[in-house]
Amino acid sequence: MRTRFQQGLDDLRARLLRMGGLAEQAVDRACQAYIDRDLARCHMVLEGEFQINVAEREIDELAFDLLALQQPIAVDLRFILAVTKINSDLERVGDQAVNIAERAMDLVELPKAELPVDIPRMAAAVSAMVRRSLESFIEGKAELAQAVLEMDNVVDRMKDEAFITLVKTMNERPEVTRQALDALLVARNLERVADHATNIAEDVIFWVRGADVRHNVAPETPLHQASTDTH
Amino acid sequence: MRTRFQQGLDDLRARLLRMGGLAEQAVDRACQAYIDRDLARCHMVLEGEFQINVAEREIDELAFDLLALQQPIAVDLRFILAVTKINSDLERVGDQAVNIAERAMDLVELPKAELPVDIPRMAAAVSAMVRRSLESFIEGKAELAQAVLEMDNVVDRMKDEAFITLVKTMNERPEVTRQALDALLVARNLERVADHATNIAEDVIFWVRGADVRHNVAPETPLHQASTDTH
Repeated sequence: MRTRFQQGLDDLRARLLRMGGLAEQAVDRACQAYIDRDLARCHMVLEGEFQINVAEREIDELAFDLLALQQPIAVDLRFILAVTKINSDLERVGDQAVNIAERAMDLVELPKAELPVDIPRMAAAVSAMVRRSLESFIEGKAELAQAVLEMDNVVDRMKDEAFITLVKTMNERPEVTRQALDALLVARNLERVADHATNIAEDVIFWVRGADVRHNVAPETPLHQASTDTH
Repeated sequence: MRTRFQQGLDDLRARLLRMGGLAEQAVDRACQAYIDRDLARCHMVLEGEFQINVAEREIDELAFDLLALQQPIAVDLRFILAVTKINSDLERVGDQAVNIAERAMDLVELPKAELPVDIPRMAAAVSAMVRRSLESFIEGKAELAQAVLEMDNVVDRMKDEAFITLVKTMNERPEVTRQALDALLVARNLERVADHATNIAEDVIFWVRGADVRHNVAPETPLHQASTDTH
């Protein structure tokens, strides 16, 4: 039978996963709204932000209660602290989705313009990073997290390319400057989402290796599961 | 005489203040580098990032140790968790300073251009927000934090104005598109620094009021000081 504390940790993990799902959905929706010039979907993203902010606060409160009411052993403590860090990053992923939706709302008012930038491809790469960073956390696997760090370089390159080609477009076709600027800012927002996924992955590596080095937990033991037998 | 735990809290607070100083300095330097087209100062910002990242990890480790080795009472727990949140925001302020320095390095290679944007004024406002958000934390004062939230609206308006005038500049004077884009991105980076100051202020309000409502601490008692007599 699981103790109340263990149930609390399960609840915390489940809530963070839901939060991750909301953040990922927000980015996907915002990108789709940008691509389809879909105002209704923009509004869904703006409304979803409130839900994400509430979820963030609830996770912080639960983490606080678990720390305050119990005296977690080191490995659980690391898990709970990692949750609060990742929670912040996911909330900011939601903020970036709002920024993208705002660019989409700006774009809707402008004439269509063909631009030399592949936002859908960049969005797919960034979405995969967010998903994998969460997987690496849930499974407590530093190698998965390491793979996210490598994907970040790819996204950075995409953003740099987008930057160069779009500045060129602005110079050559001043009549589409604003559309090109919107695309450039969306590319930057996506790069920031990738940065948050990278932060999550770095936290996973830090916490997993920290738990490993300092508290003698086998490197492949998921942080949360590791505590199952100790309460 | 202060206990080891109290000394740990003092150390944590002192380190966070130093971290805040580093982050603020990085933003100031990056803005000055942008204004003066000063490559040497850009490199100082890039080198300073490493120092900030190290400081972040050390603060997280110390917070972890305090939580693991002691069983802090609720008010200290809130203080320590707030430190870890604020710590993340300060590290990201440092990242924004790097972004600004990168824009400055791009600008150095381009001809000078008069642009209708007051970056120094915006930089001063943002710097003040960072400083005050830290003060509100150190003094545990929700009203000071509230003032930071109001300043954020001012900075947002500055950024929106910069956006509008600079897009107009790009349209009318395509030959300075890249300089205008650099200015626009610096304005956005400064807005992000303001967002981090806002996050810090929101955390202060949350933690102060949370401690207040849930744990019966007088509203004006600084979080950290509140624990002085209880250990």
